[in-house]
Amino acid sequence: MQTIRIGLIGAGTVGSGVLKILSEESARFEKEYGISLNVHTICTRTPSKIAPISKLFSKVKITDDYKQVVGNPEIDTIIELVGGTTISEEIVLGALQSKQTVITANKALLSEKGEVIYKTAEENQTEIGFEASVGGSIPIIRAIRNCLAGDKVLGLYGILNGTTNFILSKMETEGLDYKEALKLAQEKGFAEADPSFDVEGIDTAHKISILGSLAFGEKIPLQNIVVEGITKITRLDIAFASDLGYRIKLLGLVRKLDGKVEARVQPVMIPKHHAFASVMNETNAVYYKTAFAGPGLIVGKGAGALPTASAVVSDLIYYSSRRGKNLPMERNRFPKASISEANQTEARYYLRFNTLDQPGVLAEIAKDLGTNGVSISSVRQNESEKEPAEVVVVTHPCVEASISASLGRIDASEVVLEPSVAIRLEDKL
Amino acid sequence: MQTIRIGLIGAGTVGSGVLKILSEESARFEKEYGISLNVHTICTRTPSKIAPISKLFSKVKITDDYKQVVGNPEIDTIIELVGGTTISEEIVLGALQSKQTVITANKALLSEKGEVIYKTAEENQTEIGFEASVGGSIPIIRAIRNCLAGDKVLGLYGILNGTTNFILSKMETEGLDYKEALKLAQEKGFAEADPSFDVEGIDTAHKISILGSLAFGEKIPLQNIVVEGITKITRLDIAFASDLGYRIKLLGLVRKLDGKVEARVQPVMIPKHHAFASVMNETNAVYYKTAFAGPGLIVGKGAGALPTASAVVSDLIYYSSRRGKNLPMERNRFPKASISEANQTEARYYLRFNTLDQPGVLAEIAKDLGTNGVSISSVRQNESEKEPAEVVVVTHPCVEASISASLGRIDASEVVLEPSVAIRLEDKL
Repeated sequence: MQTIRIGLIGAGTVGSGVLKILSEESARFEKEYGISLNVHTICTRTPSKIAPISKLFSKVKITDDYKQVVGNPEIDTIIELVGGTTISEEIVLGALQSKQTVITANKALLSEKGEVIYKTAEENQTEIGFEASVGGSIPIIRAIRNCLAGDKVLGLYGILNGTTNFILSKMETEGLDYKEALKLAQEKGFAEADPSFDVEGIDTAHKISILGSLAFGEKIPLQNIVVEGITKITRLDIAFASDLGYRIKLLGLVRKLDGKVEARVQPVMIPKHHAFASVMNETNAVYYKTAFAGPGLIVGKGAGALPTASAVVSDLIYYSSRRGKNLPMERNRFPKASISEANQTEARYYLRFNTLDQPGVLAEIAKDLGTNGVSISSVRQNESEKEPAEVVVVTHPCVEASISASLGRIDASEVVLEPSVAIRLEDKL
Repeated sequence: MQTIRIGLIGAGTVGSGVLKILSEESARFEKEYGISLNVHTICTRTPSKIAPISKLFSKVKITDDYKQVVGNPEIDTIIELVGGTTISEEIVLGALQSKQTVITANKALLSEKGEVIYKTAEENQTEIGFEASVGGSIPIIRAIRNCLAGDKVLGLYGILNGTTNFILSKMETEGLDYKEALKLAQEKGFAEADPSFDVEGIDTAHKISILGSLAFGEKIPLQNIVVEGITKITRLDIAFASDLGYRIKLLGLVRKLDGKVEARVQPVMIPKHHAFASVMNETNAVYYKTAFAGPGLIVGKGAGALPTASAVVSDLIYYSSRRGKNLPMERNRFPKASISEANQTEARYYLRFNTLDQPGVLAEIAKDLGTNGVSISSVRQNESEKEPAEVVVVTHPCVEASISASLGRIDASEVVLEPSVAIRLEDKL
């Protein structure tokens, strides 16, 4: 029987979930996997909060000093659930340098410091598991590392932020505007008081950076990811999208084109009949394209105490079974990054113009689009009694640069009253 | 650098796919995983067919005698792609007894002989990988074994047969009847000349038996699985289902209830808004419920040369990295089976009665249902100029036994012209 002595650092929502699972299931894990998972020390700033659950473990030590855990020779594996990028970096690097195994859910840290973390793990011949860092309970890290090991990932497309997916879903199904939906998300605990990290797309960008690094073996710095959030999405665009047979989702994508990696986070329109479009509310999903297996989709809970804890404990069991067995390192190599500067993929675009309702407006818009090589597929202008009029254009496939150039001209015109809206149609998912 | 010498037995569609991937990607695998995958011997009944691709491997031996491969001390790992349950059993058991690693896509063999196969692997301290046996490229085996290792699977629900899903999809989207859709499937290569194995649900039952064994650690003999195919599904039922907001799918399920395992393969109705219902045509999917992670869904290609080969090669890399490392066995244990005799779960049912269009028919049906404790939620009887009339009843939740008892009485009545149809509504997925 193998024994793994665990140091848990950070006993908040997810940490408590981990303790709950370990207290209830350790006996079964021992029987099924032949591994005894012993909680040795819990490091938390609020020991009183975890007093009830910590009593379920015999001889567990409680401390508020992570240095009692990191590098402690009595502890084999650290579970880092502190979050953030300051103290957690010291914890993770310190543990790896002491040849402790590290399990973490920290997407910000991995996204920003992944290179040095993986290098430290490799130099010290130990391992780091981070399934919980992307998509909560969705097993996408393991899928890339093992299940698609014999394949070649071409692209990963993720709905990776529950807050924004909840907001966009409620805007559609309840007819709420952005602010109302955000308020509902906050009331339900799906959005923070300051939601900017989520709604501006940063959280999704962190996750896309981690997935892209794994899939393509290249460091994808956050500043190389084009990031656009959902704050400008209106109820009107969601209704127009629905009429056109689409649904707006905040999509994080990372794909390899002509040897270059493209990474973006943007609201896009996905055809409603696509399974990806039926991922609603706080649910997360990753859609992948590969050279051989063809497209695949994994859907599940992206956050929450027990879903995230489930991924943490599964990692714990997986890496415990590998510990000290001198296995080849799981790949975390970074050749030099080669990040694509701009999106060169052609796509159709939805464009919405808020214009004066006067003769010649549509002609002017059409002319500016045509000048930049943007060809129009369909136009919709609802009869309106009062100004302004909303003109919706769906284009034929074109590159993003043509759209930007067109909108630059059109928005400078006096007949356009608000910045125009452009959303990519993901017809080829 | 670790070197794995491979013996491939069976070089048909999937085998050729494996050879194609290995010929194109082995250099990359070597660089990324530090494992050199050398094809040592190819065993095939038709060497001429694989001559072009076998030339891509240096020093490969071609044979039509599997005994040149099984137990050959120059070969570390056998890839068994013969299929069936006769010769393949000798191959798999022989290889395991010789401590060779086995990778297989053989669902029939694992379903029927899994117990002795896993035991033989354990006794010889070697391993068997079979990701490709269920759901082609869908990584459901790895998900259960690793990604949900720290969780507890409560139920697995699969659309696991591309042929039947294609037929049901085309019946709905093209308005075909069963025979027309089957013919189309055969023309497109999605159905065999003799499709009974697929359309009668046997193939799905094999896969459900494998998944259930993995998830619950119990042997699930084929004869303990209630199996019903799709041959009795009519265009009419599909249209009624659609009107009611449902889609008919051949569902394989295995779940644990009150300590007993229930395993079934049946056409059921799934709410259209559920992501599971948007799995169309030859695509496969597995939906899972667990104690902690909450529900998850994995969708992908369930068959085809390259998707299946992708799973085989991914297994090959995974088990190659583990070979000879004295790792704890992956769980394939079978405590005593405890299979539920009948479905005790309550569900709503769709019932269709083909009746004489005369007064009192509905009253008689309602009475027989009521007598058996089946309560009616809604009734639909279209006006018809000519007999017979179709009466569609949706019930409130009840157990299957009540439905069977009711239909027994109703079908014995003179006013009912054809055996009545009962399809479970999976409202709680």
